[in-house]
Amino acid sequence: MKKLINAPENVLADALRGIELAHPELRVDHTNRVIYRATPKDHGTVGLISGGGSGHEPLHGGFVGFGMLDAACAGEVFTSPTPDQMQAATTEVDRGAGVLHIVKNYTGDVMNFEMAAELAAMEGGIEVRSIVVNDDVAVEDSLYTAGRRGVGLTVLLEKIVGAAAEQGRSLDEVAAVADLVNEAGRSMGMALTSCTVPSAGKPTFDLPDDEMEIGIGIHGEPGRRRVPLASAKEIAEQLVEPILADLDLGSAPGIVMLNGMGGTPLIELYVMYGEVAAILEKHGITVARSLVGNYITSLDMAGCSVTVLRANDELLSLWDAPVETPGLRWGQ
Amino acid sequence: MKKLINAPENVLADALRGIELAHPELRVDHTNRVIYRATPKDHGTVGLISGGGSGHEPLHGGFVGFGMLDAACAGEVFTSPTPDQMQAATTEVDRGAGVLHIVKNYTGDVMNFEMAAELAAMEGGIEVRSIVVNDDVAVEDSLYTAGRRGVGLTVLLEKIVGAAAEQGRSLDEVAAVADLVNEAGRSMGMALTSCTVPSAGKPTFDLPDDEMEIGIGIHGEPGRRRVPLASAKEIAEQLVEPILADLDLGSAPGIVMLNGMGGTPLIELYVMYGEVAAILEKHGITVARSLVGNYITSLDMAGCSVTVLRANDELLSLWDAPVETPGLRWGQ
Repeated sequence: MKKLINAPENVLADALRGIELAHPELRVDHTNRVIYRATPKDHGTVGLISGGGSGHEPLHGGFVGFGMLDAACAGEVFTSPTPDQMQAATTEVDRGAGVLHIVKNYTGDVMNFEMAAELAAMEGGIEVRSIVVNDDVAVEDSLYTAGRRGVGLTVLLEKIVGAAAEQGRSLDEVAAVADLVNEAGRSMGMALTSCTVPSAGKPTFDLPDDEMEIGIGIHGEPGRRRVPLASAKEIAEQLVEPILADLDLGSAPGIVMLNGMGGTPLIELYVMYGEVAAILEKHGITVARSLVGNYITSLDMAGCSVTVLRANDELLSLWDAPVETPGLRWGQ
Repeated sequence: MKKLINAPENVLADALRGIELAHPELRVDHTNRVIYRATPKDHGTVGLISGGGSGHEPLHGGFVGFGMLDAACAGEVFTSPTPDQMQAATTEVDRGAGVLHIVKNYTGDVMNFEMAAELAAMEGGIEVRSIVVNDDVAVEDSLYTAGRRGVGLTVLLEKIVGAAAEQGRSLDEVAAVADLVNEAGRSMGMALTSCTVPSAGKPTFDLPDDEMEIGIGIHGEPGRRRVPLASAKEIAEQLVEPILADLDLGSAPGIVMLNGMGGTPLIELYVMYGEVAAILEKHGITVARSLVGNYITSLDMAGCSVTVLRANDELLSLWDAPVETPGLRWGQ
């Protein structure tokens, strides 16, 4: 295993130290392993929390900041954070208007966030709502989920819902935006190589030099099928067509993300984006906004995923609202 | 070779198409392979051009935009662009106040930018100045250079000089800022793995599972030495100490970049940044600003580099000025 780490058991603690040092606009609670904004939102606004296993950076900690999350709970690599962490974060970010939990649909995450929500309600009287993101069209049920997995759409949802919360909308309204995004977005990913979990010390799975895995999950869990290595154009078809088979855009514009899995360089992501955009154009779909880069990764896995969100004026306006986080940043 | 591409000979053309589709704020001249701002700067401002071999994305095309470059010339992977490309770009971005060429110190780049400058002066009457970035402390002379290689400092220089040009400073003043940055910045990199050039189809070099290369160049060219794989802390020492041995910061604050080589995930870059920051603190150096991420890459190489720039109020103010490019973006 070749990694820039000290010891497998210290990866998360060491990374949190680096995040804190690199980003004075964030505050890290090292005991609870929660990343907060250094300057909290105003009283009366809805708090937004996400979290999950580490190894998907910049998600979620890199999306804490103005216009996105208030806090992110970091679990060990590919391991759900605990209810304690989530409860601490929920209590900390509550500004009297309630808290929304943004949860990727994995059994451990869902269970722990549910427990944290109950604890925060019981012990702190905090109103908590949850959105369970389940956008992955690759599989119905999977190794770690009942129902579809939550993957790339989480990035878009955190941005859009973050903008809604920043505007001071109520918990009901913010949760409704989250539901709308979750309903209107789909993703699918693929891998050229496995990732290597530090504590395992070896690749999660073997993938021959002439094969790739279509429909892979963000922890290296199996996807739809293994197929021979193909061109960027063919890969784009294998990712986009299943999304469009499941998501009717009608004449609506799309927000599209071409996401790298962590080990794929940007030049290849742009090659892929060109192919994805060409397919969408062939289907008569207008891409209103796009993102190309590493936003929800799987450690050092080589590969990519495509996310398509059916947008409308409201969602585009929230998308365009200013955001200042380490992982996503733009002005007006 | 496992890559998200169509054919090795089409990688650059395909990536340029993706860049154009993903970034409506940029304009791509596909014939000359030059990336421009869609909206040119005002008349009377100095034009800023860079360029070089592809495979280092987001450098340089991803740094075209408000507050940074006016144009980037893209060569084939790891191959200098031609004087023709550079001349076309120089002519296009000249707003009557002259043009600065930002050149990484590689023999081919230097020669071709020199030729382009002469052609632009002779045929277009355009005043052209050049800055040859040579920040790599790893080697004196190298496989592809006379003198030190130009590496990570190029990113910081394009940002800072871009801000100076945006303010409407004269060519002399802008070139002076470039000289100052080049004088005050140093870098050093390392690799855990080789990169694979698409047209070669196999790794540029072999690196055993238990070894790493210290002082590597951004094309996979040899560095100082091969050593046994070490911890993040030890790697940080092997990168930072040679920089500090060569660059006297005195009591000046530093602008520090921890850069990924393309195949290393962000979680590891944060682990590395924590170690780099700790060493700098031990030396009594204040880190005034920092960047952690993939900014100047070597295709899919796993590894990282450290850049330290001795700053002052003037450089910090230019650093903090707004920038809106695909690769670097912040407001005020």
